Amino acid sequence: MKFYLASIFMVIFCFTHAMPALSNDEPISPIQAPKLIDLGMVELGKKLFYERRLSPSGHLACNSCHNISMGGVDNLQFSVGYKWQQGTINTPTVLNSSLNFTQFWNGRAATLQEQAGMPLENPIGMASSHSITINVLKTIPGYVTEFKQVFGDSEITMDKVTAAIAEFEMTLVTPDSPFDRWLLGDKQAISQYALSGYQLFKKVGCSTCHNGPGVGGQTLQKLGLVEPYETTHPARGKADITGKTEDENVYKVPLLRNIELTPPYFHDGAVNTLEEAVTIMARVQLGIKFKDDEAARIVAFLKTLTGRQPVFPLPTLHPSGPDTPRPQPFREDGS
Amino acid sequence: MKFYLASIFMVIFCFTHAMPALSNDEPISPIQAPKLIDLGMVELGKKLFYERRLSPSGHLACNSCHNISMGGVDNLQFSVGYKWQQGTINTPTVLNSSLNFTQFWNGRAATLQEQAGMPLENPIGMASSHSITINVLKTIPGYVTEFKQVFGDSEITMDKVTAAIAEFEMTLVTPDSPFDRWLLGDKQAISQYALSGYQLFKKVGCSTCHNGPGVGGQTLQKLGLVEPYETTHPARGKADITGKTEDENVYKVPLLRNIELTPPYFHDGAVNTLEEAVTIMARVQLGIKFKDDEAARIVAFLKTLTGRQPVFPLPTLHPSGPDTPRPQPFREDGS
Repeated sequence: MKFYLASIFMVIFCFTHAMPALSNDEPISPIQAPKLIDLGMVELGKKLFYERRLSPSGHLACNSCHNISMGGVDNLQFSVGYKWQQGTINTPTVLNSSLNFTQFWNGRAATLQEQAGMPLENPIGMASSHSITINVLKTIPGYVTEFKQVFGDSEITMDKVTAAIAEFEMTLVTPDSPFDRWLLGDKQAISQYALSGYQLFKKVGCSTCHNGPGVGGQTLQKLGLVEPYETTHPARGKADITGKTEDENVYKVPLLRNIELTPPYFHDGAVNTLEEAVTIMARVQLGIKFKDDEAARIVAFLKTLTGRQPVFPLPTLHPSGPDTPRPQPFREDGS
Repeated sequence: MKFYLASIFMVIFCFTHAMPALSNDEPISPIQAPKLIDLGMVELGKKLFYERRLSPSGHLACNSCHNISMGGVDNLQFSVGYKWQQGTINTPTVLNSSLNFTQFWNGRAATLQEQAGMPLENPIGMASSHSITINVLKTIPGYVTEFKQVFGDSEITMDKVTAAIAEFEMTLVTPDSPFDRWLLGDKQAISQYALSGYQLFKKVGCSTCHNGPGVGGQTLQKLGLVEPYETTHPARGKADITGKTEDENVYKVPLLRNIELTPPYFHDGAVNTLEEAVTIMARVQLGIKFKDDEAARIVAFLKTLTGRQPVFPLPTLHPSGPDTPRPQPFREDGS
């Protein structure tokens, strides 16, 4: 009960400044508080998000790659997975991920819930499986009770596990950025320099794709529309799913919220600075070569998109029961 | 400021029930609130405890092995270190570690501060170095400011880093266990069965070594006093430091606080259950073979030593600066 009250407090605390979107002409709208949230699921999902026992290694959890203390990413080019294997694509942030119309760089998961199960089962991710996950949770008495409390029956299923994680992730929005305060009427919230960057951002066409509350995440687009994006990375974007030529290099437009916190940039994690990323995007997507301090102005605007980071009490995880499988990080078959 | 207030609140909240030790004859005393704590150092140390950039891999932090969400351990036989290397000895809990008279199984660090730097620099731990640590922190503007704020000057040194981590660790005590409430006068706080276990614990001699507020951590003792402790583990205890024959198999008496949360047990992490651990200790240290439910009674007592786990707001870490070295988890030399 203490935790629920704490959560309610945090949620109220986090969103007292978030108000409905204004009826203005801006392509970007302020981040709003999530609606219709089930706080019991949130508390359960929060534990599961930090739960390393879901990996047979006992070493990796959702938070390993999606570090909520660091902008929802690990700031690595490619994440460290099971047995120190290298991830294949740059890890997107979990913050504001509910504002994406689809999940992953190539959009292969339609929902947060669908996404949540995939890294869990990826052999170079957490290297778990549905049966490992369920068997672990079933043997931890605290989870058996909490699933029953939250869902009304004590059967633990992957659907419930991923639903709870997704519900927690729904709360990971970052309202109250300087730019949102500007949108909401506080004209002193951003500098004139950043404002000129925003005007340029709109004028040259960045906001054609980077719009909405997430400043992106609304569509899939071809990377290298005007000029090819140079990379040695083997990913083919949506074509990796559909096999269609027209889907080559088609990626979800990433969110620009908190973008200053989440280097390195692009699906290949090849770019370290925002200024370089902005310069490349202008060239390959819009055919524009920025002059003078134009890229720097846009970067100044982008930095106003950093919102209030999620703050909540660290979850205390339920202790293992007598039959909980002991994690085996060093066993050859890893199971 | 918000964080400081939250911390003050948490600390007050945590210790309202912790009172000075009673003047009674019990060998165990209640856990008390830490005295003379510098909350600025605590907040800085908390960040550093979760700071993966202190490892050149960008993947490992103090919390990787000393998981505060899980009783201050990783519940692994041996921890996962740099490049998935296997740790050499079972990781002791960070909870109540300030109640140890010396740190590590073999007592090789006199203080929490001295301990803090060692796993950081262990090549199979975080694989960092003094110069890597300092160079990373110096390039992160938020840390430069916070070190200056906390210590009064902006020079970042290993002494300050480890002092801040140690100050944070001082707060990781777990008061208000059922047993402490019993010690403090609430005679209903533990069951008659657990109480009979405590009486047996004293009678057979466990409390000769497992005493004080930590229920251990006061002395180094020979493991296998009456009968050898059977293990294939190569550690030699204090003899690994002194080289002396009389120090063979001499280890620090571990804390029994929250012991139910921290399997597997012993320096070799070879024992999975408390009942087995109690049975072995009685045999090899005291020459006793428990009858009937004697071991179970002691286990029931040990479970009353689980206190209130640390709960604090998740720290938000300072973003990297333009010159912050990019972590290289997959580079061959790892630096």
